[in-house]
Amino acid sequence: MAQDGRSRQQRAGDTRDAIVAGAAREFDHRGYVGTSMDAVAERAGVTKGALYFHFTSKADLAGAVIAEQHAISRRYGEAAFAKASSPLETLMWMSQGLATQMVSEVMVSAGIRLSTEAATTDVARAAPYTDWMSVTADLVRAGIADGQVQDTWDPELLGRVVIPAYTGVQTVSDVLAGRRDLFERLRELWTVLLAAIVTDRVRPEIPRLVGIIAPTVAP
Amino acid sequence: MAQDGRSRQQRAGDTRDAIVAGAAREFDHRGYVGTSMDAVAERAGVTKGALYFHFTSKADLAGAVIAEQHAISRRYGEAAFAKASSPLETLMWMSQGLATQMVSEVMVSAGIRLSTEAATTDVARAAPYTDWMSVTADLVRAGIADGQVQDTWDPELLGRVVIPAYTGVQTVSDVLAGRRDLFERLRELWTVLLAAIVTDRVRPEIPRLVGIIAPTVAP
Repeated sequence: MAQDGRSRQQRAGDTRDAIVAGAAREFDHRGYVGTSMDAVAERAGVTKGALYFHFTSKADLAGAVIAEQHAISRRYGEAAFAKASSPLETLMWMSQGLATQMVSEVMVSAGIRLSTEAATTDVARAAPYTDWMSVTADLVRAGIADGQVQDTWDPELLGRVVIPAYTGVQTVSDVLAGRRDLFERLRELWTVLLAAIVTDRVRPEIPRLVGIIAPTVAP
Repeated sequence: MAQDGRSRQQRAGDTRDAIVAGAAREFDHRGYVGTSMDAVAERAGVTKGALYFHFTSKADLAGAVIAEQHAISRRYGEAAFAKASSPLETLMWMSQGLATQMVSEVMVSAGIRLSTEAATTDVARAAPYTDWMSVTADLVRAGIADGQVQDTWDPELLGRVVIPAYTGVQTVSDVLAGRRDLFERLRELWTVLLAAIVTDRVRPEIPRLVGIIAPTVAP
């Protein structure tokens, strides 16, 4: 045990966390190609030896940022399940949570940047898309069972449509408005998507549902 | 006049075209950050002096690639107007044309890459998005006038939703399948979007409309 009473394993974990956090800031600022291992070591305040002990390559490091971003997003996803009273409300809270992270957490902003840039073809980046597609499909399935979603829709198809559409809205909001209009653009996207899929019983609720996608006011 | 009977201005235009074509290949392959002015000069077979005569910076060059991509896309857009017999058919032919270019023309693939990468914030890249949003809004307006689209929709809102959704589908198709499933994913996107917006009269035609978005068979 070290003097501070923490094990070598705990300290190695701290170093790894510091590296991933430093890498997120570099990737978010400079993108994948613009980021160097040297800059990450400096930003994280670790030696190059320590950096290479934890990560053998930049692709490896980018994969870790995407994995950490995805872990954060999943926690927001679980919180959405807790807050919502129906499958479609859950989808709205998830969109709200993802958008909130995207504008407030550098790990998420960096992970999304890495996941959408063509330069990162050698980085493991498929899982966040396929995971969210399957979460969406599950919620659509639950929505059909609850009579919220028309039973003529294939839940998997809607997963394959919703996640890319959501991704594109954040890309274009970034290009055109530095993400300042992200919540508004997501409400518009969901106004169209919900119009396509809800049952007549739920149709009058569309404005209330999309209204969930609003910035969280800090307490 | 030069020996070959062509004016200095014509030859300067040829050089500029060669540079933009070379830059498209470099940007498509290496992205914005990974591309150097040296590599573009070499790829285009011109001196650095000639390169800097036409383009003062990499951002300037990337802007020219995006502008050329957009010009190509607009020509496909005009062809779509000629082929289609209704506003919604025009939208389908445009989607088909854009997808075809994206998998077959390096200028378009490079332009889209530059337009979606976060690294290119200093590049002029808003116009393709805002132009296509306004073309889409015009077609929706015509669709409402023709009784194809429900008159409760705001055409501008649909422009702001359709173009980002389309952009996201191509990004995610690129990440998950190297764009091999692009046409299929676009048909699914439009199946959902059309379900939201068409009138009951047009609803039975949705499968035929989305069927337009298929790879063109080479003659």
